[in-house]
Amino acid sequence: MKAEILAIGSELLTPLRSDSNAAYLTDRLLEAGVETIARITVADDPALLESAFRAALGRADLVVATGGLGPTADDLTREAAAGALGRRLRRDETIVAALRQRFASFGRVMSPVNEKQGDLIEGAVVVPNPRGTAPGQWIEVEGRVLVLLPGPPKEMAPMFERHVLPRVQERTAGAVLRTRVLRIAAMPESEVEQVVGPVYTAFENPRTTILGAPGQVELHLTARGATSTEAEERIERLAARLREALPGRIYSEDGRDLSEVVAELLTARRLKIALAESCTGGLLAARLSSVPGASEFLERGFVTYSNRSKSELLGVPPELVQAGGAVSEEVARAMAEGARRAAGVDVGVGITGIAGPGGGSAEKPVGLVYVALAGAAGDAVRRRQFPGDRERVRQQAVQVALEMLRRGLMGLDEATT
Amino acid sequence: MKAEILAIGSELLTPLRSDSNAAYLTDRLLEAGVETIARITVADDPALLESAFRAALGRADLVVATGGLGPTADDLTREAAAGALGRRLRRDETIVAALRQRFASFGRVMSPVNEKQGDLIEGAVVVPNPRGTAPGQWIEVEGRVLVLLPGPPKEMAPMFERHVLPRVQERTAGAVLRTRVLRIAAMPESEVEQVVGPVYTAFENPRTTILGAPGQVELHLTARGATSTEAEERIERLAARLREALPGRIYSEDGRDLSEVVAELLTARRLKIALAESCTGGLLAARLSSVPGASEFLERGFVTYSNRSKSELLGVPPELVQAGGAVSEEVARAMAEGARRAAGVDVGVGITGIAGPGGGSAEKPVGLVYVALAGAAGDAVRRRQFPGDRERVRQQAVQVALEMLRRGLMGLDEATT
Repeated sequence: MKAEILAIGSELLTPLRSDSNAAYLTDRLLEAGVETIARITVADDPALLESAFRAALGRADLVVATGGLGPTADDLTREAAAGALGRRLRRDETIVAALRQRFASFGRVMSPVNEKQGDLIEGAVVVPNPRGTAPGQWIEVEGRVLVLLPGPPKEMAPMFERHVLPRVQERTAGAVLRTRVLRIAAMPESEVEQVVGPVYTAFENPRTTILGAPGQVELHLTARGATSTEAEERIERLAARLREALPGRIYSEDGRDLSEVVAELLTARRLKIALAESCTGGLLAARLSSVPGASEFLERGFVTYSNRSKSELLGVPPELVQAGGAVSEEVARAMAEGARRAAGVDVGVGITGIAGPGGGSAEKPVGLVYVALAGAAGDAVRRRQFPGDRERVRQQAVQVALEMLRRGLMGLDEATT
Repeated sequence: MKAEILAIGSELLTPLRSDSNAAYLTDRLLEAGVETIARITVADDPALLESAFRAALGRADLVVATGGLGPTADDLTREAAAGALGRRLRRDETIVAALRQRFASFGRVMSPVNEKQGDLIEGAVVVPNPRGTAPGQWIEVEGRVLVLLPGPPKEMAPMFERHVLPRVQERTAGAVLRTRVLRIAAMPESEVEQVVGPVYTAFENPRTTILGAPGQVELHLTARGATSTEAEERIERLAARLREALPGRIYSEDGRDLSEVVAELLTARRLKIALAESCTGGLLAARLSSVPGASEFLERGFVTYSNRSKSELLGVPPELVQAGGAVSEEVARAMAEGARRAAGVDVGVGITGIAGPGGGSAEKPVGLVYVALAGAAGDAVRRRQFPGDRERVRQQAVQVALEMLRRGLMGLDEATT
């Protein structure tokens, strides 16, 4: 079963507002085994709305529309949906009477414009709305389902939970969806694709999508099954193959960020760390300290932007900088070891490079970065030439440092980092 | 001129991810006088994508699609758009050669899967992508325009600003729109609204929208005029009134970030700065070092997460921490002065606080932060109680530090910060 969600209302297309219903519905439907294939936000225009309903009913088994069920002139959902289905609207006097009574209970007289909230599409089943005036509608058409719900989340959500979701679950008769995200750091997207492409394209279920960010690639797996156990097993089968294809490279399958994984490794091993950053300027410290409880493992960080600070704080010999420049393997090593020693901790990290846009040369171009580890996570240094602008270079450098730490702490083969 | 925006990618329909491009594009198009009538997010499915393109081209004058231009098997935008238009794809060898060169410049060999990124729809004009491998495409069809852009916002936004928006503006001809963004730091959105609301609501042209982020408020002014001079004058008239209403608080009207403004002030005054951060853990250093040329003014930064590092590196007396805890006015002052003195520079900054989620108490709740300045930007300390989670607290603290620096360096009345 595939769903499409329509959010109706011109106000949802202004910069200040956004629609939270669609994300909520996507989430709840997925848990019920229904995949959302499209989500559309449409302005209050009759022709536009009708075309959106027609397109949605042409491709999805379940169409859920929110909004546009109010009493005003720009509440056009009922008319547009009826038009798309080629059905008529019929005023339900029972609903109108109930609305009138609702107004009376607040000591108010219902205005005639509210009467149109009693208009039902032929064949519709009413979805009661205990929290508002606009009732919802459930319409079945040739095996497909169209659901109309009001826009306010406080009205929509309980109606969906109580009356829509149970009927959807009956129809999916047990089919369940499960998703998992596999994360890989410090490996280019095209390289990951080349390795895993032949693996995941052999599977129709789960379906896999690849997402890249600076220094990170995510594999999103979505499996369908008759039971949650079956769906989980299907995911695990592919995940196991992907783990084999990328030995030791998948750092998280449960939503954790790389900084959290490294934080947990350091905490579990009761190791303290000190950081020495030049071109990343505190970005690695900021990433590691974003993890709650960072004071357990992060002893201190040095942002040694000047050459003087590198020698004063980290003991990097000035001759080393004079001889080979501040961006070199030797300086990165001396920074890592210097940070470790100055702080009196177990692990030191050193990062030095040219983030750009200035400062590059033929020999040392923008994007050249050295990352070094010293101490209990191993002694190692990596040279990388990163693409992209200043921010991307810095972010990729941080990802490489975190991945070196992870591999070092886990005792994985450093050479493949 | 009416627009429809397509966000392409199955991952955008999972609970974990959301699409920020559509809101950005809606905003920018509106400023250019183009109304967005529909916004759709579509899964990576060829038939679905083609139907979405066909529907959009049937109702909008301008269709902007983001995503699905990568090299992998589920990057289907090119094929689907070509199908909807009834046009062919043609491999552009110039693009492929440029891609190959791009890979070579990073010392890597391009994988064959990347070649399809050189596929152009017949009649397409290439939209260059300086930050990534996927070029965009601009296609005109019977008076309508279809634009294909990559999904990553860092690639998409500059391409849109530089190559798409100017062409859209040519087409909206006649009426000219001009926009300006006024930025205010370290002042709650509701306070800004209270002060400026009565001012801007008196103006129909320019139109003003307010956007808030942690520690920052933006006023977006959009004016319409027969000429650009008229539109500029209208904007300046309102901007002048807003400057009066918020004396000294608007830090930028030309797109500069607060860190850039502070960087320019420090550079112009030839002042060197040193930072001492506890709860912000390097975030202030990362912000200031994100500005190109930061080595001109940033001498060093200390991330003094442990109490030991506060005393060893900054000379904060251990008694001070023992007496009043690490989060106090006195410790913040001692950190700022200690950083300045240890580095032998003109300006020092100290930040200490409780970012949460743990570590709070009745007396010192989560969100309590002290920020101190020492030296050539003045000696000052501010106590703030920030709302929000760990990341929001940290970001707000950084904004307060930067705004204190800006006001101190400009000699503005510190008391109002």
